[in-house]
Amino acid sequence: MNTKTYVDQHKDRFINELIDLLKIPSISADPAYKKDVIKTSEAIKTSLEKAGCDHVEICETPGYPIVYGEKIIDKNLPTVLVYGHYDVQPPDPVELWDSPPFEPVIKNTELHPDGAIFARGACDDKGQMYMHVKAMEYMTANNELPCNVKFMIEGEEEVGSESLGWFLERNREKLANDVILISDTGMISKDVPSITTGLRGLSYVEVEVTGPNRDLHSGLYGGAVANPINILCDMIAQLHDENNHITIPGFYDKVEELSTEERAEMAKAPFSQEAYNKALNIAAEHGEKGYTTNERNSIRPTLDVNGIWGGYTGEGAKTVIASKAFAKISMRLVPDQNWHEITELFQKHFESIAPASVKVKVNPHHGGTAYVTPIDSLGYRAASAAYEDTFGKTPIPQRSGGSIPIVALFEKELNSKSILMGFGLDSDAIHSPNEHFGVWNYLKGIETIPHFYKHFTEMSK
Amino acid sequence: MNTKTYVDQHKDRFINELIDLLKIPSISADPAYKKDVIKTSEAIKTSLEKAGCDHVEICETPGYPIVYGEKIIDKNLPTVLVYGHYDVQPPDPVELWDSPPFEPVIKNTELHPDGAIFARGACDDKGQMYMHVKAMEYMTANNELPCNVKFMIEGEEEVGSESLGWFLERNREKLANDVILISDTGMISKDVPSITTGLRGLSYVEVEVTGPNRDLHSGLYGGAVANPINILCDMIAQLHDENNHITIPGFYDKVEELSTEERAEMAKAPFSQEAYNKALNIAAEHGEKGYTTNERNSIRPTLDVNGIWGGYTGEGAKTVIASKAFAKISMRLVPDQNWHEITELFQKHFESIAPASVKVKVNPHHGGTAYVTPIDSLGYRAASAAYEDTFGKTPIPQRSGGSIPIVALFEKELNSKSILMGFGLDSDAIHSPNEHFGVWNYLKGIETIPHFYKHFTEMSK
Repeated sequence: MNTKTYVDQHKDRFINELIDLLKIPSISADPAYKKDVIKTSEAIKTSLEKAGCDHVEICETPGYPIVYGEKIIDKNLPTVLVYGHYDVQPPDPVELWDSPPFEPVIKNTELHPDGAIFARGACDDKGQMYMHVKAMEYMTANNELPCNVKFMIEGEEEVGSESLGWFLERNREKLANDVILISDTGMISKDVPSITTGLRGLSYVEVEVTGPNRDLHSGLYGGAVANPINILCDMIAQLHDENNHITIPGFYDKVEELSTEERAEMAKAPFSQEAYNKALNIAAEHGEKGYTTNERNSIRPTLDVNGIWGGYTGEGAKTVIASKAFAKISMRLVPDQNWHEITELFQKHFESIAPASVKVKVNPHHGGTAYVTPIDSLGYRAASAAYEDTFGKTPIPQRSGGSIPIVALFEKELNSKSILMGFGLDSDAIHSPNEHFGVWNYLKGIETIPHFYKHFTEMSK
Repeated sequence: MNTKTYVDQHKDRFINELIDLLKIPSISADPAYKKDVIKTSEAIKTSLEKAGCDHVEICETPGYPIVYGEKIIDKNLPTVLVYGHYDVQPPDPVELWDSPPFEPVIKNTELHPDGAIFARGACDDKGQMYMHVKAMEYMTANNELPCNVKFMIEGEEEVGSESLGWFLERNREKLANDVILISDTGMISKDVPSITTGLRGLSYVEVEVTGPNRDLHSGLYGGAVANPINILCDMIAQLHDENNHITIPGFYDKVEELSTEERAEMAKAPFSQEAYNKALNIAAEHGEKGYTTNERNSIRPTLDVNGIWGGYTGEGAKTVIASKAFAKISMRLVPDQNWHEITELFQKHFESIAPASVKVKVNPHHGGTAYVTPIDSLGYRAASAAYEDTFGKTPIPQRSGGSIPIVALFEKELNSKSILMGFGLDSDAIHSPNEHFGVWNYLKGIETIPHFYKHFTEMSK
């Protein structure tokens, strides 16, 4: 039975199983949800066993466990390693969700006339990860598995995959593979399939500015002492110049500059600035001078404040000068910036611009290195052929602005290429309120993945 | 019996009565404490009756009630109107208090060897207001009241006294007086008594910067859209220039410039920058170029961020670009800046510096006009004589950086001068964690106040 028929016959169950998985709030960033994160790893174990994997185990790490499962049919055949993550982003701000983030509902939208599943993690990454579990089910149930498969599903992706390197170092043999398959990215649109060939790296830091040793009355002290909030704003403002270039000395030294040809190739992807601004309800775009929107969010590094707090933030007014102000700042990196080096450059620079009237602390959080995959690899060609089978179109290679730091780690530790077959859309609002994943996209992913296995095995011969 | 003897005999009761008052969390800024604010007004009513006032009533207003009481002994004698407030600042950040803010404890400190009462409101203003209630008790109990007295104790001072103007307009006759007596300020030190002759005005606003219509993934959008937090920081940074002058056009136009003589007079007040920095644990002072610390926090206007928030502020990391960022900003004003005008100038300027890529909202909160009292008025001379009686020293006239917006309002609505007899110290940490009020200061205030009545009545003859 071909994949399309099987998916049509079982789609209701496929959707309900995902919904059950989405009900568990596996928020890795918040220790309060530890039990739920663990519970999710157990649910993944069960689903891998049902899908036909052998030796499924929950592998302990210094952090959250990694779920492993495999199906080895012939040592002489190639091996595909599937990577995904079962943890999700915090749902904040919860009040902006139209339905509770962990009570999944299916609603029709303009882009998703067949319905979309609304829940935190629907797309990133429970939905996309579960496509692979269901594709596995199809292949084993119908004797269509053409090669060996290994699954490695982690629970710390949203907090920097801190235990993954530890795990890879200790399990190189167990994880040995010929290609790594990941669905944790998006495609251009439902009728323009694309394969992500580039990802940005990341450096995430938290900064703390301390002024006076206690909160002060802004009347008695205002004007005479450094206000840590004003100073923090001042320092953050200094991190970009008037052209929105980042001012940290050395920040751009190793940035890979794309050729005119490469930029021209990128510019071919269908894009409407007007539609983009309309979708975000902004009057004007904003970014680094000399680059287009699609370049700014993919081939150029960035510096964004992800959170800021200090002083009185409650109702009403409090005339206080706070003792401390804080910010969470992340930098998206491109080839060939080294995230450890960038973190150090940030720290050195941020401390250097602090006035004598305050104390500054920079706490490095986590990071990852950028990655670009060649489009002539076996894995890329197999993925391309799979999309042609099910979309009837050749997918467009696309740079993505997001980061999956582990892709570079895989190349280093396991010495194999990752293929990023994403079925989500930018409009899926991952990391935002009302995250969702199109039912069509979900089922199309399950339908397409087995074609990858077929082509990859044949091309490997 | 003289005041000192009476205070010595009753001091334990005086302290316990204040402690009971401090146990009620009358936080006017937070609607959650409405019941407690009302409860406090009732406690004030009872205490005024016990102290010998007639016609004590809780007067309803559009906001929190104002407690009024009086003792009219002879229409031909002068009348003193006592003003104070029974509401307090929010205690945040609560975790920095060494003891719960509404469970008063007496502890000895270096500056207060006789002990200080630690609680929110201990000094600002329950403690200082209650000195007048106990002074009243002394005068009525010992037939020492030489003139008429009126009490007006409000419950909205910490949120801008929004209902007070409404109340004054409707009760001009009832509140008619020859001088207004207020203890809501401090003195230089226990052995350097001072009378506050100047107060700064205030303009308090809340600003909101909106970027995209929803929180976004900082990887997929970072660098291509305006980040409202970065923009807010940028805009706040632009509000001061490199000399820490405020950049709002027209902001300084009406600022009263003191003469060299006046500044030389001010400079005579004992002050050590080294001790100041040490007390706040700062390596360097910070402020407007060309002015001393004591000038910066008294005769010069300021602009301080009192609170800022936006994006993810929880534990761990979230790679998000927030849709909105917020800040509470207050400006301390000096004669002759008009706070309504300054609020408008701020709003106009803040909106004008916003880039096209964001939307900006400025919500004016409240404000007040600065005030300076002459030192040759009858009230000032009577207060000065009172300090001489009990401190054995002539008090120093002092400009304070704080704001009691209603002092200018009193002059306008009731056409009479306010005398600011403050007994607190800068180190009392009002508006901060661990606010306290020295037992010595509290009792000294009760002892000194009746002397003011005596001198004021005699000087009025």
